[in-house]
Amino acid sequence: MVEKSHRLGRELRPHFKTHQSKAIGEWFKDFGVHKIAVSSISMAEYFSYAGWDDILVAIPVNLLETELISRLSRKVELTLVVDNLESLNKLGNRLDKRVNLMVEINTGQDRSGIRWDRAEHIAALVTAIQESPTYTFTGFMAHGGQTYAARGMEDILRLHEQSLERLRQATDSYREEHPDLCVSYGDTPACSVADQFDGVDELRPGNFVFYDLMQEQIGACKRSEIAVATACPVIGKYPEDEKVILYGGSAQLSKDFIVENDQRVYGKIVFITQKGWEFPETDLNVVSLSQEHAKVKVPTEYMHRFECGRLVGVLPAHSCLTANMMNWYRGLDGSHFDHMLGST
Amino acid sequence: MVEKSHRLGRELRPHFKTHQSKAIGEWFKDFGVHKIAVSSISMAEYFSYAGWDDILVAIPVNLLETELISRLSRKVELTLVVDNLESLNKLGNRLDKRVNLMVEINTGQDRSGIRWDRAEHIAALVTAIQESPTYTFTGFMAHGGQTYAARGMEDILRLHEQSLERLRQATDSYREEHPDLCVSYGDTPACSVADQFDGVDELRPGNFVFYDLMQEQIGACKRSEIAVATACPVIGKYPEDEKVILYGGSAQLSKDFIVENDQRVYGKIVFITQKGWEFPETDLNVVSLSQEHAKVKVPTEYMHRFECGRLVGVLPAHSCLTANMMNWYRGLDGSHFDHMLGST
Repeated sequence: MVEKSHRLGRELRPHFKTHQSKAIGEWFKDFGVHKIAVSSISMAEYFSYAGWDDILVAIPVNLLETELISRLSRKVELTLVVDNLESLNKLGNRLDKRVNLMVEINTGQDRSGIRWDRAEHIAALVTAIQESPTYTFTGFMAHGGQTYAARGMEDILRLHEQSLERLRQATDSYREEHPDLCVSYGDTPACSVADQFDGVDELRPGNFVFYDLMQEQIGACKRSEIAVATACPVIGKYPEDEKVILYGGSAQLSKDFIVENDQRVYGKIVFITQKGWEFPETDLNVVSLSQEHAKVKVPTEYMHRFECGRLVGVLPAHSCLTANMMNWYRGLDGSHFDHMLGST
Repeated sequence: MVEKSHRLGRELRPHFKTHQSKAIGEWFKDFGVHKIAVSSISMAEYFSYAGWDDILVAIPVNLLETELISRLSRKVELTLVVDNLESLNKLGNRLDKRVNLMVEINTGQDRSGIRWDRAEHIAALVTAIQESPTYTFTGFMAHGGQTYAARGMEDILRLHEQSLERLRQATDSYREEHPDLCVSYGDTPACSVADQFDGVDELRPGNFVFYDLMQEQIGACKRSEIAVATACPVIGKYPEDEKVILYGGSAQLSKDFIVENDQRVYGKIVFITQKGWEFPETDLNVVSLSQEHAKVKVPTEYMHRFECGRLVGVLPAHSCLTANMMNWYRGLDGSHFDHMLGST
């Protein structure tokens, strides 16, 4: 992703909410990355302790965290996101230091952000930011999450082009008055497969650090590129029913799933080796989850690999959530990596 | 649930995996409860620190935790669960103190446990337990999780009767030889609405401590009985789109959902008051979730109640998972309650 952003002449501001790990953050520093995005003020603070000093909190500002915002804005180059006047006005009353603000644009994912075609709303918010002594207007951000509905590269590119077109419609007219305008954009599927980012200054993918089964299904990665798995012990085997039970349920893997052949798949088994893991020739799927139980469909010929007490790997449907629930990582060399939620 | 178990002449062994809180555990002690179930050895250890000394780990034993099992079995009356000879044999080789064992029966949920109609498997396992000097055979356990598919009381009772019938088929013949046999059974839907537990000695529900939207939909509780909500700040409001965005996504609420009118519902809004919360006259549903965003459908007449920066409550689809992700609780009086995962 670093090479690609260089090639395309864009800044890379990876989203760290996927891994939430200072140790993994260091790998990015080794590649020259010096800007990051996070999804909460407390996550910004966590990474500030690891020396990150240019941080975008890429979600509309949480007004209940203004004290932490004030504290952190004295320490790092902090950029916040707003998408409405009510938040903007309330925020300004509570801050004691100037902060950078970006306006979020909704290009069709229909989550947060001002809809791309509401030019008056966008203009009113930009004007209010510029008129306030508390803020520096730095640009726009959007998340092209529509691509998560894509299946295959063509589909990703089609949704990506549409989203970019809307983003330009909303933001291009501000470039003349703001030559330093930054438009921050990104979603892992498009950043993985697209080469065209007209109107975008900064790429902001996150999930690509691990990828997962959902990204594979979308067409953003190959299975061999998935870089995280949950190690789960076998606690039950039922050869007559072609079934294995792992300790590792929705409280460990998350309840997210992909759908294959009209069946929910909550994860896929890999066999852990010294150097990582190897794939079975047939997909062995986690077909249902309770809070701590994973049920895996296992044909007879694979049953011998599921010895009780053995650890097997589960490739996650959605790596961000799985990492969020496990709260720490083990590297292939046995080393321990932090996760914000498991650190105190 | 305490009164009901007294009335029915059954022991109550509540499952603490829902709340995972020592502080909430104390409420049970006030009602005379002295036995609990948990879903991991480490959870058993957590509650042992709060003085609980009769603990069933109600999931097939995890052979990777034998060291902790040995340690804990010297401190508390520990009961483990097995459902196959392989685990049993491996476990015996690793323990240095006698432990109680229950055999898990699968009465149709088709998760772990020996199928109720495999009498020979059940007999072989019971015999192996009895012949080993390492174990004390104390009985059987089953989870009637089929009732989670029920809709309404009649449906719960029908599935419950079928499950109980299977459980008796699997276990009744052992009563003559083992007059102290304990059959431990439970699931919140049946324990909430059924009065007939023939062949069961001990009730083991867990979720009832909080209930949730899923239990309401099943018919196990009323909405007013749901006792936990996630407090989420409003971070975006979009009156033109009848939409509000809360900070609180799948990383806070879990990705579990109920289905209403063919739509996924990840939670329902309540308005927090001094004494708890009040319900809107119309259901305000969380209709989609990202990792940190919840999208709520809000008709115009309710929009004024979603001030940016205000906390609203979200009743969980599945309270066990939500509690597991939040890792602590705040009481109505502002007090802080522990959750195992948030404690160090």
